[in-house]
Amino acid sequence: MAALELYYDFSSTNAYFAAFLAPELCRRLEVKLLWRPYHLGHAFRQRNHSVLRDHSPEKLQYLWLDHQRWSKRTGLAFKRPSRFPIKTSTALRASLVARALGREQDYVQATMRAYWVDDRDIARPEVVAEVATELGLDGAALVARAEADDTRAELVRLTDEGIARGVFGAPMFFVGEAMFWGKDRLDFAEEALRDAKAAELC
Amino acid sequence: MAALELYYDFSSTNAYFAAFLAPELCRRLEVKLLWRPYHLGHAFRQRNHSVLRDHSPEKLQYLWLDHQRWSKRTGLAFKRPSRFPIKTSTALRASLVARALGREQDYVQATMRAYWVDDRDIARPEVVAEVATELGLDGAALVARAEADDTRAELVRLTDEGIARGVFGAPMFFVGEAMFWGKDRLDFAEEALRDAKAAELC
Repeated sequence: MAALELYYDFSSTNAYFAAFLAPELCRRLEVKLLWRPYHLGHAFRQRNHSVLRDHSPEKLQYLWLDHQRWSKRTGLAFKRPSRFPIKTSTALRASLVARALGREQDYVQATMRAYWVDDRDIARPEVVAEVATELGLDGAALVARAEADDTRAELVRLTDEGIARGVFGAPMFFVGEAMFWGKDRLDFAEEALRDAKAAELC
Repeated sequence: MAALELYYDFSSTNAYFAAFLAPELCRRLEVKLLWRPYHLGHAFRQRNHSVLRDHSPEKLQYLWLDHQRWSKRTGLAFKRPSRFPIKTSTALRASLVARALGREQDYVQATMRAYWVDDRDIARPEVVAEVATELGLDGAALVARAEADDTRAELVRLTDEGIARGVFGAPMFFVGEAMFWGKDRLDFAEEALRDAKAAELC
């Protein structure tokens, strides 16, 4: 079955937009969306990459403006957070727990919104717990589970798996093994999904 | 009068696409296109930026694939050149001479094609002269003029002017002082041009 895989991290503005645009696309095309938490901090450490060091101030300034333009275009609220970049490991691990509870998409979208719209400090485990509680989940239990050794290992495993597939940033989409980088390539991913669906019918 | 300014360098794949997409857009909207040669090598030296050092091999590999996808989408031929990156200062200065001869767009497009489609070594002054000659210009005279001190100074001046306006890469579009980066933001520039045209009618 044709599916769209979405590698995301909460620290990526582009992934914030993708977390809302991709589900809408998948609904429209009737394909499955597979959420892939990807720890950019872990990946960047392995590559010695730094967002703030490797981009000029002019480029970073422009990128905030570009996000405002996308907000206007998509109708998705966006507010430049007061803390950036932030630690996202707890929030990402909590996604894995939310998946086990059947609430992965709700949790990811709510956490994205908490950071990119409401400027909440999702680096703090107690804020992650609050967001989960607002969704009707047991936030304290979810965070405790997120911090367990096996959940930690699973996030590292998933991130390393992404790196091995060629993921170098977020959001990264896969349709089969075809890789697409950025919210602004979702239209290319859509073409690939349409082709994949057409191939299934043959 | 509403106009689109296009900062380009021949060494930018994205600027190759923009050099054909932007004139088509300007024709459609009936606005003027202002070509702005911008020496990325000069700008990157000032910023200590290096394309090959600051991007991971995985990202560079992906970017070539992305260009192939844009080639397919736009119908613009594209062949990964055997030499990359290259020195473009002579070719850029020659743009200024071609402008004075009223053949700027022809020259820029032909030189882009020479590099990004036909894999010609446009870093070499004799190749720049050949391309100009193929356009019916006096290639040898054009290159001699391109290498004159005042032309050299003019390219530096234009590039520094771009840097002062916030240009950090290519292609960079301006509509008034609104700046848009990349061939994949030409649709945003189009919106701004439509707004600018509408404002003129008020």
